Amino acid sequence: MNDRAKLIDQYIDIWNETDASRRRRMIAEAWASDATYLDPMMQAAGHAGIDSMVEGVQARFPNHRFKLLGQIDTHHDCLRFAWELGPEGGPAIVRGSDFVTLTGGRLQAVTGFLDYIAAQ
Amino acid sequence: MNDRAKLIDQYIDIWNETDASRRRRMIAEAWASDATYLDPMMQAAGHAGIDSMVEGVQARFPNHRFKLLGQIDTHHDCLRFAWELGPEGGPAIVRGSDFVTLTGGRLQAVTGFLDYIAAQ
Repeated sequence: MNDRAKLIDQYIDIWNETDASRRRRMIAEAWASDATYLDPMMQAAGHAGIDSMVEGVQARFPNHRFKLLGQIDTHHDCLRFAWELGPEGGPAIVRGSDFVTLTGGRLQAVTGFLDYIAAQ
Repeated sequence: MNDRAKLIDQYIDIWNETDASRRRRMIAEAWASDATYLDPMMQAAGHAGIDSMVEGVQARFPNHRFKLLGQIDTHHDCLRFAWELGPEGGPAIVRGSDFVTLTGGRLQAVTGFLDYIAAQ
């Protein structure tokens, strides 16, 4: 597995990591210190901001998991991939696509778009 | 049609505009002066760089047209959409997705990914 695929696996693992101290270590490893996250509903900056955002999503969707969909696509310092969020063992409630820029092998900016939201 | 849809129509029109002076005027209007473009095969910066890149693509694919596919998707200053390139009246030879960041209503950075390349 190459470094970028590993990094995106780590990125997904961070969303799923509910042990706070382990998650913070993973964030510090995977994200640049001045990194930013932006999607239609949330934004965050820096390790602490990203950690709070992830914690908030986990609190809102307990026992849900993020999963990478398909392959990552990458060129230069850019990367894109699709993901889904669903209850463990159940169908996805949200699917999205993230567009990422890297710096020094770490996540610099993640911009998310939503591809699918399950009917309520 | 809202301003962002208009801007992306203009962006596509620039790729199709073979009148050089008209194209340069359109580029100056739609792109920020320090704008950048990056995809798996090409990169360009600034109005003159973007103009040369477009001119090169037009020379390589004469009588081909770019076309927007589906809707644009946008939040904050971010935008994504899909496009295709094909000979006039013929099937697409390439399809791609562009991620865009805006500044002051103009194109700041366009990052392209390829979704489909026709078998030669």
